[in-house]
Amino acid sequence: MNANLRIDGKRLMTHLDSLALIGQTTEGACCRLALTEEDRIGRDLVVGWMRDLGLEISIDPIGNIFGLRKGTENIAPVMTGSHIDTVRTGGRYDGNYGVLGGLEVIRTLNETGTPTRRPIVVGVFTNEEGARFHPDMLGSLVYVGGMSLEQAYASESIDGKGLREELQHIGYLGQAPMPAYTPHAFVELHIEQGPILDIEGIEIGAVSDLQGISWQEVTITGQSNHAGTTPMYLRHDAGYCAAAIGHFLRQIARDMGGSQVATMGAVTLSPNLINVIAARATVTVDLRNTDETLLKAAEQRFADFLLQLAQDEGVEITTRRLARFEPVQFDQNVATLIADTAEKLGHTVLPMTSGAGHDAQMLARICPSAMIFVPSVKGISHNAAEHTEPAHLEAGTNVLLHTLLELTK
Amino acid sequence: MNANLRIDGKRLMTHLDSLALIGQTTEGACCRLALTEEDRIGRDLVVGWMRDLGLEISIDPIGNIFGLRKGTENIAPVMTGSHIDTVRTGGRYDGNYGVLGGLEVIRTLNETGTPTRRPIVVGVFTNEEGARFHPDMLGSLVYVGGMSLEQAYASESIDGKGLREELQHIGYLGQAPMPAYTPHAFVELHIEQGPILDIEGIEIGAVSDLQGISWQEVTITGQSNHAGTTPMYLRHDAGYCAAAIGHFLRQIARDMGGSQVATMGAVTLSPNLINVIAARATVTVDLRNTDETLLKAAEQRFADFLLQLAQDEGVEITTRRLARFEPVQFDQNVATLIADTAEKLGHTVLPMTSGAGHDAQMLARICPSAMIFVPSVKGISHNAAEHTEPAHLEAGTNVLLHTLLELTK
Repeated sequence: MNANLRIDGKRLMTHLDSLALIGQTTEGACCRLALTEEDRIGRDLVVGWMRDLGLEISIDPIGNIFGLRKGTENIAPVMTGSHIDTVRTGGRYDGNYGVLGGLEVIRTLNETGTPTRRPIVVGVFTNEEGARFHPDMLGSLVYVGGMSLEQAYASESIDGKGLREELQHIGYLGQAPMPAYTPHAFVELHIEQGPILDIEGIEIGAVSDLQGISWQEVTITGQSNHAGTTPMYLRHDAGYCAAAIGHFLRQIARDMGGSQVATMGAVTLSPNLINVIAARATVTVDLRNTDETLLKAAEQRFADFLLQLAQDEGVEITTRRLARFEPVQFDQNVATLIADTAEKLGHTVLPMTSGAGHDAQMLARICPSAMIFVPSVKGISHNAAEHTEPAHLEAGTNVLLHTLLELTK
Repeated sequence: MNANLRIDGKRLMTHLDSLALIGQTTEGACCRLALTEEDRIGRDLVVGWMRDLGLEISIDPIGNIFGLRKGTENIAPVMTGSHIDTVRTGGRYDGNYGVLGGLEVIRTLNETGTPTRRPIVVGVFTNEEGARFHPDMLGSLVYVGGMSLEQAYASESIDGKGLREELQHIGYLGQAPMPAYTPHAFVELHIEQGPILDIEGIEIGAVSDLQGISWQEVTITGQSNHAGTTPMYLRHDAGYCAAAIGHFLRQIARDMGGSQVATMGAVTLSPNLINVIAARATVTVDLRNTDETLLKAAEQRFADFLLQLAQDEGVEITTRRLARFEPVQFDQNVATLIADTAEKLGHTVLPMTSGAGHDAQMLARICPSAMIFVPSVKGISHNAAEHTEPAHLEAGTNVLLHTLLELTK
């Protein structure tokens, strides 16, 4: 009987549209930076919806919000959820979809009077984007004990405000124990934010792991000189070194294959003039792999290359680590359950890796976790043009519904 | 007897120091942009010195200044000279040395009552730097008939003023015929503005040719995407293309060897963020060679590379030509005379190529021409730190003196 349950796609869209109006920019993006007035209004709206659904609401000292729907037994709940803070030019689905998809599941269960053995909790985690406070995924990180409250409170916003003060200011400095719940399992519903499902024409991604991330900034100090009068053998060209780095990164990705990606996203030359050999260059390096051993190998290969380059070109090269996260293995049983559920519902499925960070990677530290992805048109995200077809949003939420029904058994 | 003639190094330095005070910046650079009030004061000072030396002064309709010392016969003169306009952060020797070195030669001849068969002319050419009006080397270009006066007058300054109006405004819109003189030969004395003489420890460069210059701006339009979630095979990465270009330019220079140099001096990526594949990149390409056939070959090889790159990466690549000058062959007899003269005076000499543009390349169109270089410490120019040892400035001027004495025979 439960196998025929379906969520209401139109109703889901109505809720997504309502939340998208809060912090809407003239370009049609959403700007609800964490713990701002816009975030408060968004939180109040979501908490209101939770109340309408009869959920038991709790807020913890890092501002995470939880709405619990009781089970027939008072045991460890199954949790879903995501975040509703955005970057400055956020889309309407990133994060919001996971929270409102979870509430739509609850709404469907309530309307049809469907009980579950385990409770279901919908979580809203604080400052996932990291656009106002560092680090990103802060709320879920603190939730699972990866950072102390004291450390988190010491985080200062880009506009110079303290995190605890801002929580208090918007009325979300809660007192729930932390973690409020140790879930039986966690499933996060999210848009892919990448192009794979869209390009492959597949409806559902069953996410079984998450890439490790290695970010560094490389600074090359060479010597400025005239581009016409300085023979090649006398050059210490920081601009050439920047180019050699970008070229080598592609070679690393090509040689290693698999999930290895490598990007030089930012380059700054000085003095940056057509007829002057650059004295200084700064480039950013983004390396990702799903396997920690391989990611370390990529980093080592890059470090060896820099040593050789500095020697060959007679320049000084320094590096500064900007971020480093190990890859995360999600729970294979939960990922397989997601894939099987999607197939049973008649959807095409791709087992896949997440290239971006998500709250689920933190929850994976305390309970079996995995993610459901739906296609992002052209892979565009963090942009007003972020889009997912309503039919895909509906499909993903139905997969969430039946995955949760199975996990709460 | 004439073989023992020597210029007065201290007197030369005094004149260089006086001119350097005009337009001096707080950082110690010279800022005498062409046809500004500072340029006028500099011109007035130089014209005053010419008058003191009894020279016959003429000013032509493009503002070039000439001071003629009569010969024993009224025949085609030998000309020397350079420019006194500077870039915004100019040094004290670039250009000025060639003009004041020429006047020091005249001063030496006058003091010792040394007659010459041919007249000697010291020229001061308008807007050599091109820092205020386009193109650079404007005065000498118009002088030799490479551009009409009408075209030159249509040039607008970076501050929106007309060239003819500015000439009139500072009192240098002259009426001399153009060219005022068709020289028997032209010799320009200049600092190297490159590191070769300084690094090799050689006193005098005998410049027998000048590199051809090919400047272009390359714009790559790819597609912005997430650096984590976009697999390598789906990328259209403008940042990678910029790197591949910089890397390939070095390969062109390596493969071709000889005088070929290649530089990517400027790079701009957009959006220029660590975790975003660049949608757009603009890079500058500076190719130089002393041989036009080889320079064309380098350009062709680069164009072929861009075609292949655009296809491989799935990006659009457009190029815009910013400048193109063919290489200039100076007169081998004059260049050899310079080298021989320097050796006779006991100096070390290197036959060499100029990597920068100079007025002499324009004069070479109408008469046998060549250049004398002296070392620039560390090759630094267009900078307050531009420096040449006084002994080298003196040596170069003595080489000019005896080269002119030979040419005026």
